[in-house]
Amino acid sequence: MSTKYVYLFHEGNASMRGLLGGKGANLAEMANMGLPVPPGFTITTEACKAYYTCNGQFPAGLEDQIKPALAAIEKATEKKLGDPVRPLLVSVRSGAQASMPGMMDTVLNLGLNKETVKALGEATQNERFALDCYRRFIHMFSDVVLDLSRNDFEDILGAVKRKQGVRYDSELSVESLATLIDDYKKLVQRLTGHPFPEDPQEQLRQAILAVFRSWNNARAIFYRRSNHIPDDWGTAVNVQSMVFGNTGNDSGTGVAFTRSPSTGEKALYGEYLMNAQGEDVVAGIRTPLPIASLEKDNPEIYRQFIKVSSDLEAHYRDMQDIEFTIERGKLYMLQTRVGKRTAAASIKVAVDQYHEGLISKEEAIVRIEPGQLDQLLHRRIDDKAKLEVIAKGLPASPGAASGRIVLDVDEAERRGNAEEKVLLIRTETTPDDIHGIMAAQGVLTSRGGMTSHAAVVARHMGKPCVCGCETLEIDHAQRTVLINGAAYKEGEILSIDGATGRVIKGEVPMIDPELSKEFKELLTWADEIRRLQVRANADNPADAQKARDFGAQGIGLCRTEHMFMDPARIPIVQEMILSQTLEERKVALAKLLPMQEEDFYGILKAMAGLPVIIRLLDPPLHEFLPRAEDLLIEVTRLKVTGENPAELHSKEKLLYKVKALMEQNPMLGHRGCRLAITYPEIYAMQVQAIFQASARLVKEGIDIHPEVMIPLVIHVNELATLRRLTEETAAAVMKERGVQFDYKVGTMIEVPRAALTADTIAEVADFFSFGTNDLTQTIFGFSRDDAEGKFLKDYLEQRILDVNPFAVLDRDGVGKIMQMASQLGRGRNKNLGIGICGEHGGEASSIEFCHLIDLDYVSCSPFRVPIARLAAAQAVVNNQ
Amino acid sequence: MSTKYVYLFHEGNASMRGLLGGKGANLAEMANMGLPVPPGFTITTEACKAYYTCNGQFPAGLEDQIKPALAAIEKATEKKLGDPVRPLLVSVRSGAQASMPGMMDTVLNLGLNKETVKALGEATQNERFALDCYRRFIHMFSDVVLDLSRNDFEDILGAVKRKQGVRYDSELSVESLATLIDDYKKLVQRLTGHPFPEDPQEQLRQAILAVFRSWNNARAIFYRRSNHIPDDWGTAVNVQSMVFGNTGNDSGTGVAFTRSPSTGEKALYGEYLMNAQGEDVVAGIRTPLPIASLEKDNPEIYRQFIKVSSDLEAHYRDMQDIEFTIERGKLYMLQTRVGKRTAAASIKVAVDQYHEGLISKEEAIVRIEPGQLDQLLHRRIDDKAKLEVIAKGLPASPGAASGRIVLDVDEAERRGNAEEKVLLIRTETTPDDIHGIMAAQGVLTSRGGMTSHAAVVARHMGKPCVCGCETLEIDHAQRTVLINGAAYKEGEILSIDGATGRVIKGEVPMIDPELSKEFKELLTWADEIRRLQVRANADNPADAQKARDFGAQGIGLCRTEHMFMDPARIPIVQEMILSQTLEERKVALAKLLPMQEEDFYGILKAMAGLPVIIRLLDPPLHEFLPRAEDLLIEVTRLKVTGENPAELHSKEKLLYKVKALMEQNPMLGHRGCRLAITYPEIYAMQVQAIFQASARLVKEGIDIHPEVMIPLVIHVNELATLRRLTEETAAAVMKERGVQFDYKVGTMIEVPRAALTADTIAEVADFFSFGTNDLTQTIFGFSRDDAEGKFLKDYLEQRILDVNPFAVLDRDGVGKIMQMASQLGRGRNKNLGIGICGEHGGEASSIEFCHLIDLDYVSCSPFRVPIARLAAAQAVVNNQ
Repeated sequence: MSTKYVYLFHEGNASMRGLLGGKGANLAEMANMGLPVPPGFTITTEACKAYYTCNGQFPAGLEDQIKPALAAIEKATEKKLGDPVRPLLVSVRSGAQASMPGMMDTVLNLGLNKETVKALGEATQNERFALDCYRRFIHMFSDVVLDLSRNDFEDILGAVKRKQGVRYDSELSVESLATLIDDYKKLVQRLTGHPFPEDPQEQLRQAILAVFRSWNNARAIFYRRSNHIPDDWGTAVNVQSMVFGNTGNDSGTGVAFTRSPSTGEKALYGEYLMNAQGEDVVAGIRTPLPIASLEKDNPEIYRQFIKVSSDLEAHYRDMQDIEFTIERGKLYMLQTRVGKRTAAASIKVAVDQYHEGLISKEEAIVRIEPGQLDQLLHRRIDDKAKLEVIAKGLPASPGAASGRIVLDVDEAERRGNAEEKVLLIRTETTPDDIHGIMAAQGVLTSRGGMTSHAAVVARHMGKPCVCGCETLEIDHAQRTVLINGAAYKEGEILSIDGATGRVIKGEVPMIDPELSKEFKELLTWADEIRRLQVRANADNPADAQKARDFGAQGIGLCRTEHMFMDPARIPIVQEMILSQTLEERKVALAKLLPMQEEDFYGILKAMAGLPVIIRLLDPPLHEFLPRAEDLLIEVTRLKVTGENPAELHSKEKLLYKVKALMEQNPMLGHRGCRLAITYPEIYAMQVQAIFQASARLVKEGIDIHPEVMIPLVIHVNELATLRRLTEETAAAVMKERGVQFDYKVGTMIEVPRAALTADTIAEVADFFSFGTNDLTQTIFGFSRDDAEGKFLKDYLEQRILDVNPFAVLDRDGVGKIMQMASQLGRGRNKNLGIGICGEHGGEASSIEFCHLIDLDYVSCSPFRVPIARLAAAQAVVNNQ
Repeated sequence: MSTKYVYLFHEGNASMRGLLGGKGANLAEMANMGLPVPPGFTITTEACKAYYTCNGQFPAGLEDQIKPALAAIEKATEKKLGDPVRPLLVSVRSGAQASMPGMMDTVLNLGLNKETVKALGEATQNERFALDCYRRFIHMFSDVVLDLSRNDFEDILGAVKRKQGVRYDSELSVESLATLIDDYKKLVQRLTGHPFPEDPQEQLRQAILAVFRSWNNARAIFYRRSNHIPDDWGTAVNVQSMVFGNTGNDSGTGVAFTRSPSTGEKALYGEYLMNAQGEDVVAGIRTPLPIASLEKDNPEIYRQFIKVSSDLEAHYRDMQDIEFTIERGKLYMLQTRVGKRTAAASIKVAVDQYHEGLISKEEAIVRIEPGQLDQLLHRRIDDKAKLEVIAKGLPASPGAASGRIVLDVDEAERRGNAEEKVLLIRTETTPDDIHGIMAAQGVLTSRGGMTSHAAVVARHMGKPCVCGCETLEIDHAQRTVLINGAAYKEGEILSIDGATGRVIKGEVPMIDPELSKEFKELLTWADEIRRLQVRANADNPADAQKARDFGAQGIGLCRTEHMFMDPARIPIVQEMILSQTLEERKVALAKLLPMQEEDFYGILKAMAGLPVIIRLLDPPLHEFLPRAEDLLIEVTRLKVTGENPAELHSKEKLLYKVKALMEQNPMLGHRGCRLAITYPEIYAMQVQAIFQASARLVKEGIDIHPEVMIPLVIHVNELATLRRLTEETAAAVMKERGVQFDYKVGTMIEVPRAALTADTIAEVADFFSFGTNDLTQTIFGFSRDDAEGKFLKDYLEQRILDVNPFAVLDRDGVGKIMQMASQLGRGRNKNLGIGICGEHGGEASSIEFCHLIDLDYVSCSPFRVPIARLAAAQAVVNNQ
């Protein structure tokens, strides 16, 4: 018995996503629920994998299994593929395990040829409709299956319309359509050397192969890469009898969400078009009507649809995204799936569904994709700002963005990747545009509704988006955007407010987000469930306060070098660095001492009652000096011109010192605690500042928990030496100020040797904090700047690496050594606190790993604290 | 009962080195053997450690234990410390567990004061002798114990000599000596505010403290650092009754080795001076007589000494370095210790002693210090060269050296560290000069014998040295060296031949060393014993042949970038790098292909029958381009002057490309196999060249074993991809050439992630080779250039690290991850070969570690292959 590749809908169910794809599994589930699903079958993802194994051939047995399945459809519909009287037409659609909207190919109306088209005309008593289906089919089949250029067909269509003197496709006469079909077929013959296939069986075979093939088209590969979908899953193929929303005004098609995908509000939310095929709605070519209008247009169908929607949500226990078609007054369900939604909607739906008794707190927690929450934690337009609103579109994806106008996706990608803030403005977007959307601050389109491609993609990415802004026109020739008669050139700044649909001239003031009631409630559940503490990385009192407001349980990383970079202080820092003697250096450090004391005073005060980990100076000293290259140019210029010898002399001296401090590999150079081994007076000043600030706060009655963190340790001797320095300084300050306070001394674990010798280091450490940025660099031997600028792209494209290890913690390498270090450390020091303060501390998969290896806390940027709280709870639920 | 700090000689023995120090333990052993040792006792190293614990005080109980020990000496000698009639005089000497010649302090003639000096004069009937002892004692005590400047005392001595009108100390009259003593005492009173101590008990107490203190003087610390002696061992103190070699012409003193420390020849080898104290011989102030002369001078003493020497060697089963004194016709043994020797002597002694039945092969093997063998493997003067010999001195340390004349040790250190070849020329050297000797190519002195300080130190370091070249005079004012009337300025080049004592004008041609008969024999024993294979790092056929001659069992690392650096090829390499398209790059690579093929042909042929591991291109591409800094200067100059716009344009273009390739941290950048992920055509060319060369050799009937090594792997996917490329290329070449051959594909393990994921990598690797240079850099987060240039010095000085991890493999960090990687790798692939090809592969301690973790081979530079063979055998013997 060979592998079963083909499943009739009633043979499957929702749990078979892996084999049948999401679409196929849900069609099966709906069919078994007794919902009105047009009959069909699904060819499994296994068949697709086998197709690739067989170098693009049908695997053995597949063809034989398709025949009886097709026969079953024919029996159920009482039609027959290719039958000259009652012809069956089918759709052939892709459907992978994970949703990849619009990325792969679809063929509709399959089964038409010069004979069946007549029968279809007769059966529907609508010859024009039949011919329109036929020309759409030839067009789509030629594009998708025969891989011919769309444009050639559109040129012919244009010519026929001009000849007849009409503007819209729907105005084409029966004669024009017949001419068009003829011209299309001639074009196919000319381009391929073969006639357009008349045999419906052959059409089906080729369409199935084309869908298999589309798994590996460029945009599908790009989408999978962006969404971490494995390349080896393959797509299923759904063959289903056609129903038509475009047979007349008693037909129609639509999509709906069971709750608002923007806000999560509990109300049916969708759009439909009468006398249209589904693609017309999704593609955003005509602007559809809101679903509520259906109640007036066709109350019976509306009632039925409300019932089906409600049943589907109850059945799946989650908000559904439903596609339906009305064929001559009868409702058919074409698809249901879990609806994509904004982060805000995601939270509201989950919290509401808990309160409705539909799901548990734990389920609510894991329903939220933490990466998506970012959008809620970003800025929105300040309510108090005076705005010059120049247009209004549909509020398709919340959040606000300002950026320079860009009309082209590749340009948007280029400039966006160069850190420029750009706003992508398009008539409509297609799946080919994803890379441009990703690089833009936001998207504005002139056509398409809330479920158009641009809206769906932008919501998923958390980018602000305004759609269907009909007063907007793009003039590609002039590279301008016309809005109500005014012209805005490419490069000018506009802003959009995706929450209201407003388009605003110029840049707008934004304010920080606040958490919604539901978000706060969800986070309290997360706090009940999670085991990991969440702290924040903050370098000043304002950030510390923000972190605290977001629920941070302390500061996991306060970087002191940011304080050194302050423009007012940099001359003193340079004086310190350029000192020739210890005495000179101490003079400069003495000037920095009161400034640092104020810094620490503010942060410790803002975090009263909570631990504050202060990391001593980390970067190499040359980072505080002018760049050697600039000096070299200036020195060469002064030498050649001979002007200003005094200036030349002083610049040469400075260049000499800068070059003496320059390093081959600064990342692996004289920085971190290595500076303090050479110049202990620098750390001595810093710890004195910390403890003087502490002493003042203690006298003011504030509860402080300072923790001193030594960076870049590789050997217990470094930490022991610097711990001694810290303890002596603390003792001296306490004695001088006549107060007592507790403090801790710990170390970053950010170099492999520290991790490998964590047992001995733990003997003199109160805590470890994994610096996973540096640890990733040393474990991979990757300089982050060089890797991301030069070769990491090749590694991701060729799938040498699945993800950027600077974004998602590498469990096999970095994670392995972290686990080893934790075990070694705790084995020697039971009271050792262990956390992480690299950027990974705010990323969900990395946080899950920290939970799994039993760290005490993660620390991340203040804005990511809520994400981390949630992710920490998900880690518990997902690993129970 | 308190700790026992004091041991009479008869209470100790040779095995108690740790507690009694080397000198004390051997004095005890000799005393117990019944040899004529002046009575004494040893204060333990534990007492020294306790002294440091007690902040420089005598530890509790020490003073009470000294009293009875002193009483025992007094009883044995029938003298008494401070006795006005029969005064006991003692020496107080340091003596650590490891020999640290001249590094710590000694006080002689202790016990003299204005009363006892009279008694000494009466007892010896030699007032002049007694006064001379007294003035030496005051001088030495003031220097060592009171820490007063030697020069002040020498100035007084000079003044007294001038006043009396004599040239040598020995010509001083009794009156002058009395004046001198008086003046010395006044000076002490003036400088310290206290009179010179008259009480012998107080003298003894202070001298013991001074010896303890001298453990931590600057030169002792420096010596320990250079010789990897732990700082916490401490020194013992030996208090011994004085015997005098300077009481007249029937007295004398000398040192001797039981075999030649230069060649190992079995013959008593030493020097003595009549009417002198021991320090006179060692300090090289007077040139002593060879020991054989003693047979004529005093046959009875000579006979006794021969017997004692022979007994000592038999007793200790090793060559001895003996100090003796003759006091008024009676022989006393003052010290015996294992004699330091040249590498050549070391080998000859060990091999001879095996054949004499004294020691086993295993003992012979471990007697050799592998690091020392370096000197035998370096060059000597070509016999056929015409030499302009300008002087002859004593052949004090073998080997030949050419270098620029430098007269000052600090200057020698400065210039030597700047990679300049310098020859240090001094009247004589002192322990303060070590850093200068270390940095010089060789040492030439005008005074002192074969056992002078310069000779001993140079032999130990394996530096060529010619001593006692009496025709040489240094004119410090003119910065010249006068030899037989001719003047040679500082900076001119001279050569020395330490094997013959010749001093030669200018640079001389040198030839490669050959292994002595004994060395070869010893190495065959090593080969019988060792388990580790030894391979060599060689990049060309000549080096490969040399390696083979030295016994290499294959090539462990053939670097292909050295072939790219060839001046004839660099333009093609640059053309390849600057290519804008794949096609351009392939054109350049096609030109390199036949060149690389010739390289590989030569090496594979030279190593017929043995494995040859060829590492594909490793360094970042910008290493092959001009330096950005030079281009930037040139571009700026051209811009300012406005001359030659065409040149400016082309230079600017090149600068742009060079800057595009430049990296923040090239060590962690786009290099190694990362290049081949981006530009697979580069590796494709290299493997094609390897396999084309292989195919030719197979057709010639040569037995070849090519192994392709991929550098800088971090993930199994890299190796899998590049293995596929290699296999496809091999298959194509074999098909085209119609031959078959075997080959292997393996990887460097030189980045932590590769080590951590060695299990998965091993699935597609035939072998691993640890690149411990890079592994040390990434495990420590040390850029080697930056660390060694900037902060490693601080780490070693402050003892944060004990040794430079680039010289000696760091077992705790790098070693730990190597062991882990080996276990992971072998766990997944039983046939995996594992070796090491970093510089550590030629260093003994690192080789021992490779043995301990069960690697298959080490690979090192061809000249170090014999060292590695020996060290691999020692690893077996020392870990049985």
